[in-house]
Amino acid sequence: MADEHLKQYLMTPGPTPVPPAVSQVMAEPMLYHRAPAFIEIYATVLRRLRPVFGTEGDVLVFSCSGSGAMESAVANLVRPGDHALVVSCGKFGERWAELCDAYGAATVHHDSGWGNKVEPADVERLLGENSDIKVLFTTLSETSTGVVNDVQGLAEVAHAHGALIAIDAVSAVGAVPVCQDEWNLDVVAAGSQKALMAPPGLGFVSASEAALAYAAERPGGRYYFDWQKTLKGQRADQPDSPFTPAVGLIRALEVALGLIEQEGVEEVFERHRLLGSAARAAAGGLGLQLFGPEDEAANVCTAIKLPEGIDGAKVPKLMRERHGITIAGGQGKLKGKICRIAHCGYFGKFDILTVVAALEMTLQELGHEGELGAGVAAAQRVFLDAGVTSGASA
Amino acid sequence: MADEHLKQYLMTPGPTPVPPAVSQVMAEPMLYHRAPAFIEIYATVLRRLRPVFGTEGDVLVFSCSGSGAMESAVANLVRPGDHALVVSCGKFGERWAELCDAYGAATVHHDSGWGNKVEPADVERLLGENSDIKVLFTTLSETSTGVVNDVQGLAEVAHAHGALIAIDAVSAVGAVPVCQDEWNLDVVAAGSQKALMAPPGLGFVSASEAALAYAAERPGGRYYFDWQKTLKGQRADQPDSPFTPAVGLIRALEVALGLIEQEGVEEVFERHRLLGSAARAAAGGLGLQLFGPEDEAANVCTAIKLPEGIDGAKVPKLMRERHGITIAGGQGKLKGKICRIAHCGYFGKFDILTVVAALEMTLQELGHEGELGAGVAAAQRVFLDAGVTSGASA
Repeated sequence: MADEHLKQYLMTPGPTPVPPAVSQVMAEPMLYHRAPAFIEIYATVLRRLRPVFGTEGDVLVFSCSGSGAMESAVANLVRPGDHALVVSCGKFGERWAELCDAYGAATVHHDSGWGNKVEPADVERLLGENSDIKVLFTTLSETSTGVVNDVQGLAEVAHAHGALIAIDAVSAVGAVPVCQDEWNLDVVAAGSQKALMAPPGLGFVSASEAALAYAAERPGGRYYFDWQKTLKGQRADQPDSPFTPAVGLIRALEVALGLIEQEGVEEVFERHRLLGSAARAAAGGLGLQLFGPEDEAANVCTAIKLPEGIDGAKVPKLMRERHGITIAGGQGKLKGKICRIAHCGYFGKFDILTVVAALEMTLQELGHEGELGAGVAAAQRVFLDAGVTSGASA
Repeated sequence: MADEHLKQYLMTPGPTPVPPAVSQVMAEPMLYHRAPAFIEIYATVLRRLRPVFGTEGDVLVFSCSGSGAMESAVANLVRPGDHALVVSCGKFGERWAELCDAYGAATVHHDSGWGNKVEPADVERLLGENSDIKVLFTTLSETSTGVVNDVQGLAEVAHAHGALIAIDAVSAVGAVPVCQDEWNLDVVAAGSQKALMAPPGLGFVSASEAALAYAAERPGGRYYFDWQKTLKGQRADQPDSPFTPAVGLIRALEVALGLIEQEGVEEVFERHRLLGSAARAAAGGLGLQLFGPEDEAANVCTAIKLPEGIDGAKVPKLMRERHGITIAGGQGKLKGKICRIAHCGYFGKFDILTVVAALEMTLQELGHEGELGAGVAAAQRVFLDAGVTSGASA
């Protein structure tokens, strides 16, 4: 049994820790969603979302989880019988295929392998073989493995074949650069509870004019997730939501996006780069292998292969029960095989050192031989080399 | 311009005021949704929802607005080309028709008239004329007009014709009795932000075994709102949500449902009965007419016809700007014609007296002649007659 008095640390890649200023605003009295006080907050949120998506367009806000945002992409872009391509490299990529199937698509699903990146050459081949495909669904940050794909390259391939590209950026937005307009991404789906440092319950879709026009030609089969309905409300002089918005979560998001604005979007990405770099170095220091390739872009969460010979499923359980540290293990086929060090959102240097220290102690408790402090030291070295001033807010 | 230092009072029928204990729990640190601490809260919420729905079955929880819960009913029960009957008596009833249309139903929509109750005889006739209809969609509490329908009677008619009945109880659940099992209601859709005293962002669907079985025979066209997916997670030994739940809102709901449990469900309904009675008496004291019939069941919000000769659209605006009181006016075709006194959720006696006093002052400011304090006095009389002990928590 866990000691209920243990100091608790949330170290998962979603929900992620929420800054005190963000959680405390939800303790304020409720606001009516059509009163000026809320309309102003809502307008600020809509404005502040744009830079984290790298767009000057509208970012649509839904009260739902990140999966709801993904569903809105499928519900607006796929009619029964349409041909859709899903290229996945982990659990969340597979969700696109489940969604396309649920909406009656003729789904071509290519699994690039968990832990691998999606290869533009595969997409090129698949689109070449299936000229009926109108939309490619894929993943920017695959939270189940830590892989971050080159969606700019994938967008080029998709567009060369006349297809739209929709990406799951649920854990990417706010952690790694998402340059929707520059990279010509048609649809970027995201959620509130990862690098945006807000609680779960808000989903986002940023859709290009091409994607909006494509969807408008295919009405029906959706209501709550209909883009036009939400767009119309958000574009009104007094921005409104077609359905009662999650007022408290919008207020939390306003504060969280304000923190990102104050830190600076580029500085936020740089902090994530440093944390990712330190987490990968820690794995090396621990004598453990990364799951998937060493990749300087993989700055959302770091998946580490657990040593053979220990019962890997026990790692998250022991870390929580003995040390008060909640981390994510592997999902689905990776259960017991990896653990994931999260660094998306409200994470700093000492969060990485803490989780690495706890992992070292837990591995020893499970009988794995390793030098205590070696992973911590490797991460410390990365932080010191980066300088005290650089990444200060980490 | 409003005086920004005015003390503020939220008096709308959704979002409704949130008790401090409910809003404050959202300022607690975030929890991982698969950690034991959250699973316990989630299980408590699932258990506490049952009595307010009057069911011993499962109440499905979605991260969405009340409209999302309504959509889940349509998405699970209606396939393209299916015949569906919608009988509405206000803005939210019409939403059922929009939803059925969006899902490709052959929708028969009967408008009973805003402010009227849905008549069982009309439903009897419509189902008799359309034997292909498999589902009746209608409203328990029509928030746009205050009407509360006799859904028990409507369920009898529907079942006599072999149809299922799905009701919108978004503003009813927690305010007026909803006896799903006793009344044989197949689907009850609701939301968190009205009488359940929690913030907006959670939707609920309580579906009978018959409705669940009917939906299971009609797969596809839905994913996020799929009942089987959510049911499977909730029925697991460690209840889980198929998608990251809105952790903070679930925590808030746990506290709110705990308050209802402590007060007692029957006492909560009695409090709403008393507040509704006082609001109707106040309208009479003000010399104003109710919109719709005087009805002892109409205890969610009270719609009052505004006097002719004043600019009714100014009433909510002036009440907010001069008095700091946010009330709801009329929606759609009722804009400027009515105002609504809310009493669903965290409302007590002095909330009614406050809003009535502000309405009296506002009407005078708009040039309407009336005796100041007359509406207040009529409401006070109701409270006094009810006794000091009865409805104490009001």
